Amino acid sequence: MNSKKKILVIGGVAAGASFAARCRRLDEEVEIIVLERGPDVSFANCGLPYYVGGEISDRDALAVQTPQSLQAMLKLDVRTRSEARSINLEAKTVEVANLDSGDTETVSYDALMLAPGAKPIVPPLPGIDDPRIHTLRNLQDMDRIKAMVSSAKRAVVVGAGFIGLEMTEQLKRLGLEVTIVEMQSQVLPQLDPEMSMLMESELKQQGIEVVLHNGIKGFHPSEESLSCELQSGDSVEADLVLLSIGVKPDTEIAREAGLELGPREHIVVDTFQRTSEVGVYAAGDAVQTIDRTTGQASSVPLGGPANRQGRVAADHLFLGEKARPYPGSLGTAIVRVFSVAAGLTGWTERRLKAEGCDYRVTMVNDNHHAGYYPGAKPMTLKLLWDPQTLQVLGAQATGFEGVDKRLDVLATAIVGKMTVEDLCHLELSYAPPFGSAKDIVNLAGFAATNVLDDLVEVVHTLPESGEAQVVDVRPGPLYNAHPSPGSINIPFPTLRSSLDKLDREKPVVTICAFGKMSYFAARVLKQNGFQVVSYSGGIKGSLDPRSPAKLVLG
Amino acid sequence: MNSKKKILVIGGVAAGASFAARCRRLDEEVEIIVLERGPDVSFANCGLPYYVGGEISDRDALAVQTPQSLQAMLKLDVRTRSEARSINLEAKTVEVANLDSGDTETVSYDALMLAPGAKPIVPPLPGIDDPRIHTLRNLQDMDRIKAMVSSAKRAVVVGAGFIGLEMTEQLKRLGLEVTIVEMQSQVLPQLDPEMSMLMESELKQQGIEVVLHNGIKGFHPSEESLSCELQSGDSVEADLVLLSIGVKPDTEIAREAGLELGPREHIVVDTFQRTSEVGVYAAGDAVQTIDRTTGQASSVPLGGPANRQGRVAADHLFLGEKARPYPGSLGTAIVRVFSVAAGLTGWTERRLKAEGCDYRVTMVNDNHHAGYYPGAKPMTLKLLWDPQTLQVLGAQATGFEGVDKRLDVLATAIVGKMTVEDLCHLELSYAPPFGSAKDIVNLAGFAATNVLDDLVEVVHTLPESGEAQVVDVRPGPLYNAHPSPGSINIPFPTLRSSLDKLDREKPVVTICAFGKMSYFAARVLKQNGFQVVSYSGGIKGSLDPRSPAKLVLG
Repeated sequence: MNSKKKILVIGGVAAGASFAARCRRLDEEVEIIVLERGPDVSFANCGLPYYVGGEISDRDALAVQTPQSLQAMLKLDVRTRSEARSINLEAKTVEVANLDSGDTETVSYDALMLAPGAKPIVPPLPGIDDPRIHTLRNLQDMDRIKAMVSSAKRAVVVGAGFIGLEMTEQLKRLGLEVTIVEMQSQVLPQLDPEMSMLMESELKQQGIEVVLHNGIKGFHPSEESLSCELQSGDSVEADLVLLSIGVKPDTEIAREAGLELGPREHIVVDTFQRTSEVGVYAAGDAVQTIDRTTGQASSVPLGGPANRQGRVAADHLFLGEKARPYPGSLGTAIVRVFSVAAGLTGWTERRLKAEGCDYRVTMVNDNHHAGYYPGAKPMTLKLLWDPQTLQVLGAQATGFEGVDKRLDVLATAIVGKMTVEDLCHLELSYAPPFGSAKDIVNLAGFAATNVLDDLVEVVHTLPESGEAQVVDVRPGPLYNAHPSPGSINIPFPTLRSSLDKLDREKPVVTICAFGKMSYFAARVLKQNGFQVVSYSGGIKGSLDPRSPAKLVLG
Repeated sequence: MNSKKKILVIGGVAAGASFAARCRRLDEEVEIIVLERGPDVSFANCGLPYYVGGEISDRDALAVQTPQSLQAMLKLDVRTRSEARSINLEAKTVEVANLDSGDTETVSYDALMLAPGAKPIVPPLPGIDDPRIHTLRNLQDMDRIKAMVSSAKRAVVVGAGFIGLEMTEQLKRLGLEVTIVEMQSQVLPQLDPEMSMLMESELKQQGIEVVLHNGIKGFHPSEESLSCELQSGDSVEADLVLLSIGVKPDTEIAREAGLELGPREHIVVDTFQRTSEVGVYAAGDAVQTIDRTTGQASSVPLGGPANRQGRVAADHLFLGEKARPYPGSLGTAIVRVFSVAAGLTGWTERRLKAEGCDYRVTMVNDNHHAGYYPGAKPMTLKLLWDPQTLQVLGAQATGFEGVDKRLDVLATAIVGKMTVEDLCHLELSYAPPFGSAKDIVNLAGFAATNVLDDLVEVVHTLPESGEAQVVDVRPGPLYNAHPSPGSINIPFPTLRSSLDKLDREKPVVTICAFGKMSYFAARVLKQNGFQVVSYSGGIKGSLDPRSPAKLVLG
């Protein structure tokens, strides 16, 4: 790239702003023009729900940069309210409309970055144009919702993914009655079902109406409210509706220009973020990247990847092949809703199953720090691993504290191609306020290698009644308070002296609260000649720990 | 290992208890005898300070297991108050004294585990036997201190390592006046000096008297107090003294038996925890293990390694070469004192320097989560890396929140032999309450690769006055409130138009609050032909963020 040349950037939020900033760092002289359709650049997208709910009180805190600050800091020529209408790849020009004046002009470039982002999916339902129906993508959406929440009493959130849940929390925080409607039969459909149950329970406990396996058929407006008709035939009244059913890449302009798009309309890029046209880069929510574990095509509309892709593209533009490629995305994500956190990194079981991959599941439960230190909170960790290479393929965690830490450790382990054996000996920071001498990540390694070494066989669902003897080894009082269905109670310390209570001809399933004692019991029984499996992760793994009456085994 | 055989374990706390439990899991029938000199087994060593201070109120919570529970759960024959006096390797017997009755007996074994642990170092100083002087290693020590704190007003803690600091916090919590005395010229001598400064500042802010570069010459008792005479000649009065100057392996019995010991009296073991004698294993604080990054001999007296070593030894005893070896220790450790946390993993700069290794330092400062989300707290991260392989060799972090998470990610990265390039693209969990789109770990990768790519040269100390032009690019009001010494202030946005204020013949050092703007400024100046270096990590890196008047550059 020659310093006298001109870089044009379409889109000035995460990927576009990162690209432009890195370009300036690499070259003081090159001309950099950033076109942004909206009135803001480089704003804190992920903070929008928290301003609506009042957790963030200063709106300016979200406007990370302004065109003026970017000019002063980075000599960027930032043009807001400027919409790129078409690209002429041959002539290396872009038609730009000024959305305020209505004028259009042709801007030439030597290098082009496409960072148009994604836009919320808005299904063509009856009544969808009602002004009480919102999506949340930028500061203007946020302002519109914020202006309406003070007079609204009832909200319906459509879609129980990350943004839907964050908005549900914030609307509830403001005192609204909130109903969340999700097509899938679980909240957080990004996670495997059992890993979303703590979140579902938390939502209900906080007074949220959770409607699953249901969708919106249409909206019926009246003056005093908007009636949301569900596919089940029921309806829910709302003063405010948030649609958060996903996003799609905003790539019409790229398609019209003739750039190669993927099957779901993402711009196809290589590992240097190059599109199918020389000199044209793309990054962020609009692109199809690769999955970091498998190298398959993947799209991950998240801020972290967007920022880092923008940086990679700038490096390639100025450093060429000396630049370091973008290694692909894992799809690490997390959400906090009220006191519960849940997240994932890498592959889920659902996805592994859909792709026909061979995998093993390890499920562990433990406290987030030493149990004897006050404030220890339970956490569930699900690990997916490859039975051939033993590599970690994915992880999900849910709990109250420390969920982000375990996901980050496992995201790092996946990148390092580490195995379940490696997890046994991760040496994580331990003092009672922070962790345990054997962290839950170590425990997951132990549990996986125990299976690998044939010390124990685990099951993740209980057998049909009658197929096996279910032995619950929890202490009597705990068992009596909440007996597991179809089981007999043999507290672990009495197991060795109670073997004659069991039928040696019939398989045994051991079960306990956390999956640890049931493993111990399975070892005792196996060595005594029984055919035995342990129920992985224990009852607590399928249970809201604060309402242990609700036993869900699945 | 034949099931009819007998396993003898000397020491029943972390390594010994883990070993015995794992043996039982692997074999239901083998006889397992655990000898423990003290009255307790498998207690929560790391929780002792918190019971003294009252954070943990239930003493039973610390007694994780009892001989009875271990018999019931694991069929272990646990003999407390039983001291192993000598080992006859030839005869495969151990002489055991019952500390209550005074009787001795000879116990035979087929396999032996030595997990004697370590004991506090107690220097032979005048007056050292005064009953007001304590060490803290077991529940009895804890009880003695606890019994004394209600009547004590002034405490002296000797040694500002992890336990010394934890006890300092807890004694202060109880209302005592606390003086901490440390031989080194910094608190937390395990860390590099600049990484201990936030902790030192926190101690002082909490009213702790911090005496550095000083030691105890002797204790002079009187009825009403104990006068602690310092090497400097000063003295400090105390009603209670805690000695926490380190531990040494409790290995006399091993030496007398003829087992190979290392240069500091640790039992030498291989990666399966085998000692120099067939059938004799050792694990925990008493052994010499290997450093996980270099393979050098190392000893790490911490609970995590002890537990995992015990497990490895049991696996080897029953599974032989099929067992997975202990991969060595990193020495990951963390401490929380009042609101500050600090810790490390892998090598420090001090150690790299002492070993004559080639290394690079990268220092970054950032908030622990998105700055626009309430509650963001500053954090400092120091990374040591190999300029040849680019691998991470060590990391230290200090701050208020999220310190453990970054240490754990970097401990995992070290094990995965990951490079500073890999850190750029770790995809860590991000939502505003948890992190940033570019986490401080990513920033450390960016900063290191910027140096690697010759985009910027950094310095970690400021030049002598006059050698260079120091340009502080912080905003005017911040600069004026706390000017950096010997600098001129050119706020970054005005830098490009102020180049004529600088002498092109004289090198420039750029400086700012966090090390980011100074890097930006260095890029501008370098591309304008200046010879320039950036002050790494910024002023905040050497500063208590709550008292920014105290500028410490070093």
